[in-house]
Amino acid sequence: MGYNAVPLTRLIEQFASLPGIGRKTAQRLAFHILTLSEEEAKTFSDAVMEAHQKIKNCEICKNFTDKPVCDICSDSARDHSVVCVVEDAKDVVAFERTREYHGVYHVLHGLISPIDGIGPDQLYIKELLSRIGEGEIQEVIMATNPTTEGEATAMYLCRLLKPLGVKVSRLAFGIPVGSNLEYADEFTLYKALENRNEL
Amino acid sequence: MGYNAVPLTRLIEQFASLPGIGRKTAQRLAFHILTLSEEEAKTFSDAVMEAHQKIKNCEICKNFTDKPVCDICSDSARDHSVVCVVEDAKDVVAFERTREYHGVYHVLHGLISPIDGIGPDQLYIKELLSRIGEGEIQEVIMATNPTTEGEATAMYLCRLLKPLGVKVSRLAFGIPVGSNLEYADEFTLYKALENRNEL
Repeated sequence: MGYNAVPLTRLIEQFASLPGIGRKTAQRLAFHILTLSEEEAKTFSDAVMEAHQKIKNCEICKNFTDKPVCDICSDSARDHSVVCVVEDAKDVVAFERTREYHGVYHVLHGLISPIDGIGPDQLYIKELLSRIGEGEIQEVIMATNPTTEGEATAMYLCRLLKPLGVKVSRLAFGIPVGSNLEYADEFTLYKALENRNEL
Repeated sequence: MGYNAVPLTRLIEQFASLPGIGRKTAQRLAFHILTLSEEEAKTFSDAVMEAHQKIKNCEICKNFTDKPVCDICSDSARDHSVVCVVEDAKDVVAFERTREYHGVYHVLHGLISPIDGIGPDQLYIKELLSRIGEGEIQEVIMATNPTTEGEATAMYLCRLLKPLGVKVSRLAFGIPVGSNLEYADEFTLYKALENRNEL
């Protein structure tokens, strides 16, 4: 890319610094930006700054929002006695997509991971405890991923929360709907067997 | 995504409007932007505007550059008698990566495609003709893709350029290096057979 102009190289590098965007895709995106009108490019550029400046963590659940308290936490039609604890904001989007969950959330913004130097203090765990301290919450659903860090965080929180007298539950793991037994790994199959339901 | 804040939704939409970026990836990228520092976000945002404002088409070859004449066209060490005609700036990057091409380029910024309403007038074809009119160019290599539009454009240009007394050549098509005959489609195999070289 030795012959490329500096502003273009810089834009390609910026795109390449995004997660999951390789060199080739970054180049494609940068070239696409050059084909936009001045106004379209400005809209894109402004959207980045605007989102970055206006989006903060909700005071209650720490999900991304442009208000002090997010729409979910301020929705009185939702069940504020059930809290679903998730790793990050993407998981909230995933649960909302099911349209079947009517409780509220608590976004940890990470998982406990000693290898990466992330301990409980770097996550929004104190804030979860103080929410439970307010007395309205009756059930906490651990909805972290079934990874080592996800399990560890769920176990850690469970031990912390149980003494506070709230019900603590964990998402069910098993064969994904629409999938095939043949393709399920042994841990998933084991979980599906262990958590079998009577018919 | 009904519960998402407007600036976040707007940023997700902006990313989703980029080519090859789906809804899920757009969301992931937007969430990543939120985790950046204010300064990093500004760098990204500025890179978009700066590239868009400073990068123009080279006066000679129409490749992207931040100077009036690009580094390739102003490099006296290159062979200015050979011009490689490509569809867009990405193709220049691809040729430069081979480190084996020492001529110059001409970027058409598209291909003739009647279905999409793109005729010769929308491409930088007049500019190629006037370059040839200057007399220095001796060979024009048609390096458009082996697609219907690429072939049609190469054929159109060939008919236009031959009467001007320049040599017109076309990239060789055949089995890609490192590939397997088994996986080659019939057209590629036919081209490889047709263009076979004596050993």
